[in-house]
Amino acid sequence: MTTRTVYVDGHFVPEDEAKVSIFDRGFLFADAVYEVTSVVGGKLIDFAGHMKRLRRSIGELEIPYEVDEEKLLEIHRELVRRNDLDEGVIYLQVSRGAADRDFAFPERSVSPTVVLFTQKKAIVASQSAERGLSVVSVPDLRWGRRDIKTVQLLYPSMAKMEAKARGADDAWLVADGFVTEGTSNNAYIVTKDGKIVTRDLSHAILHGITRKAVLSQATGNGLSIEERPFTLEEAYDAAEAFTTSASGFVTPVVRIDDRPIGDGKVGPVARRLREIYIEQSRATAI
Amino acid sequence: MTTRTVYVDGHFVPEDEAKVSIFDRGFLFADAVYEVTSVVGGKLIDFAGHMKRLRRSIGELEIPYEVDEEKLLEIHRELVRRNDLDEGVIYLQVSRGAADRDFAFPERSVSPTVVLFTQKKAIVASQSAERGLSVVSVPDLRWGRRDIKTVQLLYPSMAKMEAKARGADDAWLVADGFVTEGTSNNAYIVTKDGKIVTRDLSHAILHGITRKAVLSQATGNGLSIEERPFTLEEAYDAAEAFTTSASGFVTPVVRIDDRPIGDGKVGPVARRLREIYIEQSRATAI
Repeated sequence: MTTRTVYVDGHFVPEDEAKVSIFDRGFLFADAVYEVTSVVGGKLIDFAGHMKRLRRSIGELEIPYEVDEEKLLEIHRELVRRNDLDEGVIYLQVSRGAADRDFAFPERSVSPTVVLFTQKKAIVASQSAERGLSVVSVPDLRWGRRDIKTVQLLYPSMAKMEAKARGADDAWLVADGFVTEGTSNNAYIVTKDGKIVTRDLSHAILHGITRKAVLSQATGNGLSIEERPFTLEEAYDAAEAFTTSASGFVTPVVRIDDRPIGDGKVGPVARRLREIYIEQSRATAI
Repeated sequence: MTTRTVYVDGHFVPEDEAKVSIFDRGFLFADAVYEVTSVVGGKLIDFAGHMKRLRRSIGELEIPYEVDEEKLLEIHRELVRRNDLDEGVIYLQVSRGAADRDFAFPERSVSPTVVLFTQKKAIVASQSAERGLSVVSVPDLRWGRRDIKTVQLLYPSMAKMEAKARGADDAWLVADGFVTEGTSNNAYIVTKDGKIVTRDLSHAILHGITRKAVLSQATGNGLSIEERPFTLEEAYDAAEAFTTSASGFVTPVVRIDDRPIGDGKVGPVARRLREIYIEQSRATAI
């Protein structure tokens, strides 16, 4: 494995030397937010969207950090250059910084910790997208503010492991009989009469950047959308199912709880939306 | 401020040099558990209880870390010595270790990260205990496995800040009308007919080490206990209220949502339980 160059608090350093204080509140309290921006052909996809959401997450948690979009864009691009990143993701995390352990937030003079690193990954030519995902349903036990993109990711991580143990690729989380979202993606079904259904925005789900783009593109292409909770039973009976996320784009789901969705193959709506998203992303990446 | 000596992965280091990888899953996924053991007169209170719970948390998350009680006791004692700690706490955190970012757990060969540090603090002669706490009720939005002592502490941290903003010392978390616990302590009321009521053990609350000891001491002293959920209204109407935690011992609560509890003064049951707990702790500390 080659050694990446990563970014920590103003410095570009080899990944082995990239460290944060044990007193960092990201480490002690999960008091940190993040974004993952995809890179295709060395360019960033929907960078402005990620910066907008980062600003919102930081605002909700009152982390005293000013999102300087231009400066962060420069750091993202520098990481692309230094790591020769053609395709993959850039992870960005901002924590409230290091202070002696106390549930109360520290003084606003404490500097937030800013960390970025790259991950090479095939995104456009994705095996998962070609064959479609198999998912299992798992109770949604996460906290009540999933609209804030925090690093409190232990439960999604556990759900992912449960999916693997059950022979599936991923999990869909279910609360009160309704699907909220996947472990790290928004969830959709296509009904037998051709409507795309996905959970409406609230504190219950992440406000996906890719979700927003895909819904807009779907509408622009004459597809009909319903933003509302849907049940697991509706999903079993759907014509198609799929997920969206920054690094997964649009990824078809072909099995839920070991039941084939539709004919159990990648469906035309998901395929079409993926094509449109890739085309649009290439055209607008910066 | 004097510089503490802390422990990180086998080494005793000055706190300024105590760092973990940015890829540590404690930092990226809140994939870590912790314990806080109190120190009084340079000795550890209920160390065995904390080790037992640590073992349980680690087991629930399948972190491949063997809790070596003897070795951890040695590290705790060395930190007491090196930091000249007469009274305060020792914080211990075990995370799943550093690995490239992936929701799936890494190979079991990845070494967990073990971090310990001290905090000096007046515990026995506590102002909070003398005057009693004022708490406010806040909706309990935490995840569904509060019995596992993870570092997903952002919400308790936010609740603490909300309490401060509302002029109170701490928050009691409420789900479906019932009090679960405080931000970092178990919650109790004493009914007008003298029964101590506290939430029964489940996934909804932390299984407090101090809770266990205090309930046992209360029974041993002829007090009557009911382990069941209680409502916020029952708390308003109670004769007394209090909390227990490793570093707070038994701490009286004298106001909830700005309503005086009982006569608004520290009550006899809480005072007595605190005395008993201190006496027992001194007698059994190691």
